[in-house]
Amino acid sequence: MAMTFKVTGKWVGGLRVESKVRNFSVNFDEPPSLGGQDTAPNPVEGLLAALVGCLGIVTVVVAREKNLPVEEVEIETEGDLDPRGFMGQYQVVRSGFLAIRFVVKVKGSLKEEDLQVLLEEVKRRCPLSDTLACGTVVEGKLVTA
Amino acid sequence: MAMTFKVTGKWVGGLRVESKVRNFSVNFDEPPSLGGQDTAPNPVEGLLAALVGCLGIVTVVVAREKNLPVEEVEIETEGDLDPRGFMGQYQVVRSGFLAIRFVVKVKGSLKEEDLQVLLEEVKRRCPLSDTLACGTVVEGKLVTA
Repeated sequence: MAMTFKVTGKWVGGLRVESKVRNFSVNFDEPPSLGGQDTAPNPVEGLLAALVGCLGIVTVVVAREKNLPVEEVEIETEGDLDPRGFMGQYQVVRSGFLAIRFVVKVKGSLKEEDLQVLLEEVKRRCPLSDTLACGTVVEGKLVTA
Repeated sequence: MAMTFKVTGKWVGGLRVESKVRNFSVNFDEPPSLGGQDTAPNPVEGLLAALVGCLGIVTVVVAREKNLPVEEVEIETEGDLDPRGFMGQYQVVRSGFLAIRFVVKVKGSLKEEDLQVLLEEVKRRCPLSDTLACGTVVEGKLVTA
């Protein structure tokens, strides 16, 4: 029953990369402090942006299923990362996120028990939250074109 | 030495979520098969797009450091995900990615040993690859606005 999602992309100069998701383009760059020109979010921000998207969508889907009167949903995320790993000192500190935190704010007359159920379902059903919290198998190779 | 990256966002109707990364907007939706209107990538595609961006940037950064003659970089990623977890059957299958694969294709006259060094450095230094392979601490809460 698994679906396979595919995304491709290419380096387009400087530290800019253009990702292609079906007919959509998603651009990345780095701020000057990390060597880029700041024309787009950087990839770690892109990951947090996707987490925001996923938490929002799953909150709405679960609220609809349970007939919870959610009128507005806002999401805040933040993640701690030490750029020394990316810079090459990965024996000192991991290059990935050290921790990620999120807050989902819903507007609507929900009881405390509804909030608990909603949070629990969102955490379990959000593909991004689950992937980030538990990790996954990553296989990669590098070839000459 | 850790930096904290922040991204916020809000539900904007249907299954559409608009993420805000500093002064950039990043939109998400779902295809009709998953309940949306397909106006933007979905969040799991967004995660793969960010992985593409990160692999591309790190490949270029490492190649420059090591004076490897990389002229072009293309990246292909794919990830397997069973949407039943997202739909609520998370006791049957995890909601996150079951596996992620990537291929980085570089154009340039590189020796086999250069490719091996480049791949090893990219895997270790790419913050997205490290986060996905190893997971991270995710803390979340849900509150009423």
